Amino acid sequence: MEDCKVIFYPEGRTVTIQKGMTLLEAASRAGIYINSICGGDGVCGKCKLIVREGSVSAEPTNLLTREEIQRSIVIACQTRVNSDVEVELPLETRLEEAQILTESHRKKKFIGLFSPVEEVEGLEKLEKGISFSHSPLSTKIFLEIPPPTLNDSISDLQRIYREIRKHKKLDALHTGLPNIKKLGSLLRRAGWKVTVTLGTRDQITEILQFEEGDTSRSNYGIAIDVGTTTVVAALLDLNTGKLMGTKANYNTQISYGEDVISRIIYASDEDGLHRLNYTVVENINALISSLALEHNIRLSDITAILCAGNTTMIHLLMGINPASIRQEPYIPTANFFPVIRAAELGIKINPRGLLATIPGVSSYVGGDISAGVLASGMTDSDDISILMDIGTNGEVVLGNRDWLICCSCSAGPAFEGGGIKCGMRASKGAIQTLRIDLVNNTVDFDTISGAKPRGICGSALIDAVAEMMRWKIIDRAGKFRHELPSERIRKTEEGWEFILVESAKTATGSDIVINELDLENLIRAKGAMFVGTEFLLKKVNIDFDSVKNFYIGGGFGNYLNIENAVTIGLLPDIPLERFQFIGNSSLTGAKLALLSTSAYRRSKEIAEKMTNFELSVEPSFMNEYTSALFLPHTDLYKFPNVARKLSWVKENKCPLS
Amino acid sequence: MEDCKVIFYPEGRTVTIQKGMTLLEAASRAGIYINSICGGDGVCGKCKLIVREGSVSAEPTNLLTREEIQRSIVIACQTRVNSDVEVELPLETRLEEAQILTESHRKKKFIGLFSPVEEVEGLEKLEKGISFSHSPLSTKIFLEIPPPTLNDSISDLQRIYREIRKHKKLDALHTGLPNIKKLGSLLRRAGWKVTVTLGTRDQITEILQFEEGDTSRSNYGIAIDVGTTTVVAALLDLNTGKLMGTKANYNTQISYGEDVISRIIYASDEDGLHRLNYTVVENINALISSLALEHNIRLSDITAILCAGNTTMIHLLMGINPASIRQEPYIPTANFFPVIRAAELGIKINPRGLLATIPGVSSYVGGDISAGVLASGMTDSDDISILMDIGTNGEVVLGNRDWLICCSCSAGPAFEGGGIKCGMRASKGAIQTLRIDLVNNTVDFDTISGAKPRGICGSALIDAVAEMMRWKIIDRAGKFRHELPSERIRKTEEGWEFILVESAKTATGSDIVINELDLENLIRAKGAMFVGTEFLLKKVNIDFDSVKNFYIGGGFGNYLNIENAVTIGLLPDIPLERFQFIGNSSLTGAKLALLSTSAYRRSKEIAEKMTNFELSVEPSFMNEYTSALFLPHTDLYKFPNVARKLSWVKENKCPLS
Repeated sequence: MEDCKVIFYPEGRTVTIQKGMTLLEAASRAGIYINSICGGDGVCGKCKLIVREGSVSAEPTNLLTREEIQRSIVIACQTRVNSDVEVELPLETRLEEAQILTESHRKKKFIGLFSPVEEVEGLEKLEKGISFSHSPLSTKIFLEIPPPTLNDSISDLQRIYREIRKHKKLDALHTGLPNIKKLGSLLRRAGWKVTVTLGTRDQITEILQFEEGDTSRSNYGIAIDVGTTTVVAALLDLNTGKLMGTKANYNTQISYGEDVISRIIYASDEDGLHRLNYTVVENINALISSLALEHNIRLSDITAILCAGNTTMIHLLMGINPASIRQEPYIPTANFFPVIRAAELGIKINPRGLLATIPGVSSYVGGDISAGVLASGMTDSDDISILMDIGTNGEVVLGNRDWLICCSCSAGPAFEGGGIKCGMRASKGAIQTLRIDLVNNTVDFDTISGAKPRGICGSALIDAVAEMMRWKIIDRAGKFRHELPSERIRKTEEGWEFILVESAKTATGSDIVINELDLENLIRAKGAMFVGTEFLLKKVNIDFDSVKNFYIGGGFGNYLNIENAVTIGLLPDIPLERFQFIGNSSLTGAKLALLSTSAYRRSKEIAEKMTNFELSVEPSFMNEYTSALFLPHTDLYKFPNVARKLSWVKENKCPLS
Repeated sequence: MEDCKVIFYPEGRTVTIQKGMTLLEAASRAGIYINSICGGDGVCGKCKLIVREGSVSAEPTNLLTREEIQRSIVIACQTRVNSDVEVELPLETRLEEAQILTESHRKKKFIGLFSPVEEVEGLEKLEKGISFSHSPLSTKIFLEIPPPTLNDSISDLQRIYREIRKHKKLDALHTGLPNIKKLGSLLRRAGWKVTVTLGTRDQITEILQFEEGDTSRSNYGIAIDVGTTTVVAALLDLNTGKLMGTKANYNTQISYGEDVISRIIYASDEDGLHRLNYTVVENINALISSLALEHNIRLSDITAILCAGNTTMIHLLMGINPASIRQEPYIPTANFFPVIRAAELGIKINPRGLLATIPGVSSYVGGDISAGVLASGMTDSDDISILMDIGTNGEVVLGNRDWLICCSCSAGPAFEGGGIKCGMRASKGAIQTLRIDLVNNTVDFDTISGAKPRGICGSALIDAVAEMMRWKIIDRAGKFRHELPSERIRKTEEGWEFILVESAKTATGSDIVINELDLENLIRAKGAMFVGTEFLLKKVNIDFDSVKNFYIGGGFGNYLNIENAVTIGLLPDIPLERFQFIGNSSLTGAKLALLSTSAYRRSKEIAEKMTNFELSVEPSFMNEYTSALFLPHTDLYKFPNVARKLSWVKENKCPLS
């Protein structure tokens, strides 16, 4: 088979592939990760590349405009390489480094018009209220062992066990053969002064390693949120519980499919499964080695990893085919995984270091949600609380100390920028907050990293819709009131749209707009989340008044304007002080479980206790859902404060009209 | 480096080695195992070979007679190869296949002059008295699992766990990632009818494997006695407890040293350790594959192994350097080993099959003794019992249900044929029972496999000494009464000796004799065992009258004349019906532990409970020992029946004189 060289600009990165392979495969092999929502099926049209040199053959497509074709733009997944080629990534195709939850974003921040959004970080929460003992997944203990004598001649291993039990009450102690093999000579070389690393593996405490001398001060762990879109890793000092640093990157499985369903399909053959597994493992290795380098820590001193992720992500991380998750009756292979060695997955920390996962509840309520419930502290209270995790697959949990019920809602990708004309994820250049002043014809906005705007992410989309409602630019069905005398409202081939940012001010050179299709998608998304929430309340026959705390998590970076989310009908119309945006609660839960075996045990109790309801099989679901496809809802009595504030009760006029 | 070819006759087996390597190394690589007591140090002179062709260079030695040198006999470990060579193994150098505990020897058999010796086999014992529940180390269960529905949507793994718990009460269930990876597709392919193999790993029950359909009837285990001299493996049907077959072979580590001490020295470098480990693993693999072949069983249906062996043998099996066992204060790396996968050692059964070991007590009281105590049933009774295991390193255990004490005695290799001019192990051609008739000038004897006699093994050595005492050929100090008018008593360069078999009747063409040096070695051996036994009694301040059962194990094949053993002072002078020869009790204990986790648990309790005393540090030891260096003992009041029977009290005359 003939080989072809592909050069990717602007990096100039080069990869050699077999003739006939697609440009998407070439990009993946070159380590260049590009937007691809459909996973290479040629239907989303997101993976655009410009061919500068060389011969390619492409399938006919209606995903490209004539102008794009003239600019030599191709759909990477549908274009095969015939010779050496040079290609360029247009700005909109590029995946920027994720901006999520890195240290610089950890300040408290007030944003939005009415309500302060406070960042909550796991360890702070820990200090504030939830009390778990400090008992990390792995611990180092320095032992000065009395050497054996004729009168005290128990074996080396029993001597170690006896000494450990002077420090810690432990019944079941265990260690593996590779450690025992080294033990005799190590003890004698070290003059009976050694450090043991203890790990908690299910019911047993295992000695993970023996080290000469006192190394007990160097013991680190990694908490990971394995998200469908981003992978976030936090490095913690297991002795002190101190957070050393956090790093995030895209889950580069994205190149093989944007959402869990397309990844499950991609994983259906052995090769695809292997590739997805390898990809996320490499993502994690990159994050860990980068954290270790930055903090001058040896990988061998990282002795434990705790992962939280949705059910599909954990299956792919473990190398398990997630096929049955997608087929009725939607069964995962496992929700509770054993604690394994990170090395079993090819993850590079201490070779005998452990990897534990927060258990999930069902195919669509994963360990990320159990972790969120753990982090929220909702099971530490008699008060009834709700946790809502907003995403393509949204999840809602309702309960308290005694009971927990949950459901998942197919919200669609609108909140993550999918299905939205100018939508994008919360990464560099994304508009994240937004305010419209129709009188002065201005739109104030704020982008991630302060870059020139490239598109609009979930939080700003909510702002935009709430603002358009407030200015009565759109009606309750999400249709433009095109009689309004504003230059920002215009009609195109795709229908009516509102211009948020003019092309001159954007990074892409195109207008950033919201159109009626975008509004439809957003309304469907918020409707699904709201109906799921109402559904759970109805299950236990209570109303929103009984809900004392409403925790919100999701892929919004750190920014969500709660009042605007209530305004559009995503969140219920209850007193704003009951809401709390808890950010990446999956990561926070993973950190807690890493630092405290009792927190880890609690996460298992949470997953065991939680009863999952399948929304789609509920007979009343479609009716409820249809009622929620208005702004904020068909039934305004459910949103009295929104109705009052927007003066819908008395009048329904735009300030301009 | 130049290569040389070495051909071994009579097999004609060929091996290529580097020029300069020794013939002993060449033999080992060719899979030809030859006598070598010192482990290649050039001091025992047992590894004789005849060089037929080619050039070798040998160190000067006084281990060969002039006649031997003329016959081109060399000491293999001290002879290096200079060219292609052809060598021949003389008969006395050859290790014959072990005859120990194969099926054909399992009949009850009465031998010796006075006392019947009854073979006891573990499972019979189990039926007779000791009651352990049938709960093997691994079990297969066939499950017909209700398929998932929308209303019963727990994960595949939880569904399996739930189904297992319908059959068995188990809290801690666990399985490894490789099994989980296969689970989803396997369950669906099998139509939810699968067989699980459960294994007991320390505190946890592990699912070792999932199989499609009902395979529950095929589940087998192997019990192994890893002896210094022989390795014996028994194949058991784990469903029924039935013994399918037993096979024995030499532990071919013998090529690297006869006793544990020379093997510990050989293992002191990495390479030597690796070789000893590899050798015993290959011995075990050969036994298992031969058993499997014979009984038409797939290796993958063998799911558990239970090993018993002395502390050094288990260290070498595990690949652990046993160096500290030999150095004061004599500390093993471990007595209690975790249950591991057999595959971790390279043992070929089911890849996820388990390997457990019976725990030992100290460096010189190993798991073989714990197994023996388990098999004897002495901890199931309020009666006080003794277990004596006779060998180069002898062990004595005293106790009952409530307490156990033990010690080891350096008896030396006399009972295994070592240090005895015509001594040999209990293998083909060894004289195993013997009776002297001085009046008719005959010696009746019986050899293993009925072959022409090649030498004398431990049991016949005991017979010979007792007979010589009876005929008053020797005095109580073990010296010949050379005034006796018998042609069988003669003086040579090596001192006085008694001819047991004339050269014309032997396989080697030399006389088989016993000389005074042999008698000294035997007296030292029996003295050490007896003193160890007395020592334990003194520790708890009781005498032999209080001992209700006296169990004897050891490397005598299946033959030991108890009365003769009392006569020489090896065993105490108590009523003969209290003695029971329990044969290979290490294997019996291993079988029990394999078939019953409660027996396995009991073996751990036994090892934990047993208090080991170091004989050599006892101040009175040397005095006691010196007193025991007579036949049967200095103090005839300790052997009143022996004294009476041999008429030492009234007269001290030989029938001939």
